[in-house]
Amino acid sequence: MGEFDLIERFFKRPTPQTDSAHAANAPPGVGIGDDCAVLPIRPHTQLAVSSDMLVEGTHFFPNTDPRRLGHKALAVNLSDLAACGARPLAFTLALSLPEVNEHWLSEFSAGLFALADAHNCPLIGGDTTRGPLNLSITVLGEVYVAHGQTQALLRSGAQVGDDIYVSGQLGDARWALMVLQGQLKLPQALSEPHHGSPTQDSPLFAAAQLRLEQPTPRMALGLALRGIAHAAIDVSDGLVGDLHHLLQASSAHLKTPEPLGASLNTEAALGLMAAAHYLPKDLVLRCVLSGGDDYELLFTAPPSARAAVQTTALASHTPVTRIGTLEATPGLRLLDAHGKELGGADKYKSFDHFSSQLA
Amino acid sequence: MGEFDLIERFFKRPTPQTDSAHAANAPPGVGIGDDCAVLPIRPHTQLAVSSDMLVEGTHFFPNTDPRRLGHKALAVNLSDLAACGARPLAFTLALSLPEVNEHWLSEFSAGLFALADAHNCPLIGGDTTRGPLNLSITVLGEVYVAHGQTQALLRSGAQVGDDIYVSGQLGDARWALMVLQGQLKLPQALSEPHHGSPTQDSPLFAAAQLRLEQPTPRMALGLALRGIAHAAIDVSDGLVGDLHHLLQASSAHLKTPEPLGASLNTEAALGLMAAAHYLPKDLVLRCVLSGGDDYELLFTAPPSARAAVQTTALASHTPVTRIGTLEATPGLRLLDAHGKELGGADKYKSFDHFSSQLA
Repeated sequence: MGEFDLIERFFKRPTPQTDSAHAANAPPGVGIGDDCAVLPIRPHTQLAVSSDMLVEGTHFFPNTDPRRLGHKALAVNLSDLAACGARPLAFTLALSLPEVNEHWLSEFSAGLFALADAHNCPLIGGDTTRGPLNLSITVLGEVYVAHGQTQALLRSGAQVGDDIYVSGQLGDARWALMVLQGQLKLPQALSEPHHGSPTQDSPLFAAAQLRLEQPTPRMALGLALRGIAHAAIDVSDGLVGDLHHLLQASSAHLKTPEPLGASLNTEAALGLMAAAHYLPKDLVLRCVLSGGDDYELLFTAPPSARAAVQTTALASHTPVTRIGTLEATPGLRLLDAHGKELGGADKYKSFDHFSSQLA
Repeated sequence: MGEFDLIERFFKRPTPQTDSAHAANAPPGVGIGDDCAVLPIRPHTQLAVSSDMLVEGTHFFPNTDPRRLGHKALAVNLSDLAACGARPLAFTLALSLPEVNEHWLSEFSAGLFALADAHNCPLIGGDTTRGPLNLSITVLGEVYVAHGQTQALLRSGAQVGDDIYVSGQLGDARWALMVLQGQLKLPQALSEPHHGSPTQDSPLFAAAQLRLEQPTPRMALGLALRGIAHAAIDVSDGLVGDLHHLLQASSAHLKTPEPLGASLNTEAALGLMAAAHYLPKDLVLRCVLSGGDDYELLFTAPPSARAAVQTTALASHTPVTRIGTLEATPGLRLLDAHGKELGGADKYKSFDHFSSQLA
């Protein structure tokens, strides 16, 4: 099968029609098949752009379920749009494949398009070539402009005194990865109900593996937080590492003499991992604080917005937990349930692809 | 060196300022460093998007000069914008690297940014990870909308009776590749003036190698052809293959009962390769008609536009050659200088990455 046949068979779909919500006068867009895709952009919007690359052996195991991989390749990009409060418009896919495996391609494209359809985000172009397995997606979204101000959620808008929130769960992707890598033996309490296959058949492990392999981008929450959150980022490198990015960007924006800091309530954080009761507390903290690959939204909002944040969470069907406070004092403080400092925050560093997760 | 240090050192540059030609009221864009880049888009424009991936061993040799590679990775994407008559806005780079080689990164980014700066096309985001060498770029451009009509040049606008043109030279990239692959021994006439190193020091070979490794995207010509050309495509797969794509798209658009065809003047085509006099005629024809990797513009325009096309070529400092005619009769006909059909057009098939160039 050649490149053009492959695209025709697995990736070509009817040219997306211009969304009826788009300006009625805008000429229709042109999808896959020309040198470029041409997209109408609505007035009073800006374009949000993000690119993420997933590489076999670095970001996923060679035997990863291709349907989940198709989902994840787009999900990690959509998550960046969510963190900016952007609405998805379209995406491109550049795909390097070692061979044409029709089953793999069929499953991969099914997972990819299921998520794309759920978010009304058509594939509009890309590239297919031979080489080591590599999935490179660029996603385009729109953010609104009101009164000359962008409505994008940025990392740089946090203020001293802001509450710190995180959506959904944290840490599950990391302990699932540790089990798959053979670094962590599944505790008996988790594997007991399942005779014969102690690690792979536990429902809690299966749920954690799903979080690793098929993360949920928090699109509705991201859109709903516009005008409520001061700053947002998605948790891909790990909570502490991404909080550090947010603090850095906000400090730079505020031109504070010293970098901003934060206190985190570790009890609230521990509660974010479904399997927390079955694993050692230190491991749970490491997974939650620096696990990475969570694709949850980490955001800040003023205390006056607490009711609005909870309403937003309910309306977007996304759990949100308040886990800390943004402070003028530099550094990160880990507190227990009584607000007493635990120490040891320094060891929860960011995930960095060059001290690679899988390698 | 970690991912964030690497980006900071080799790829972070001052946030691009909003072009003064942009709407004065548009909020400024946000560059590298947030979850997404946020770009203002001017009224009465549409977005043009293209993604291309270059893989080591498939698209370039492991020892390719990294500065040229940085140029080429962006050039092949810009060429797609040129073929649509789009003006570059910005690009993202997703980069997978087997190791952090500072010399390589420094040279690569120098080549990349030199071309980006020449076309006022800033890097606004991307991804860096560990893995087999892979360069994935998505370029964004703007096309104008006038009277509710897109001004984008498309593949699908060609008409029966149109002249067929190509810019610049064709075929040089292919014979340079054949020499580098050891498939073609440099003819003595080309190597003679250079004692000692018969293949690598000939000026004609060096020029052809430059065409392979550092192609020139025809941005000015693409922009200038709007309103003159009926259809355009860039020659990446080879002249015959890309002409076939243009004919297919235009036939579909016109809903012709049979696919459109074309006659090509092979004498004019032979003249497009600088080394034509020194190589066997059959080889020259193969390089010109199906070599690929040329990144020239192939376009059609009505005979009434001949003077306008030549004026456009002069104004954009880009040679343009009329090489054929678009016809209602399906198929491709190769003609000699006297208009007599040569036959054998079928053997000049398209380059396809899955019958890979380098593998």
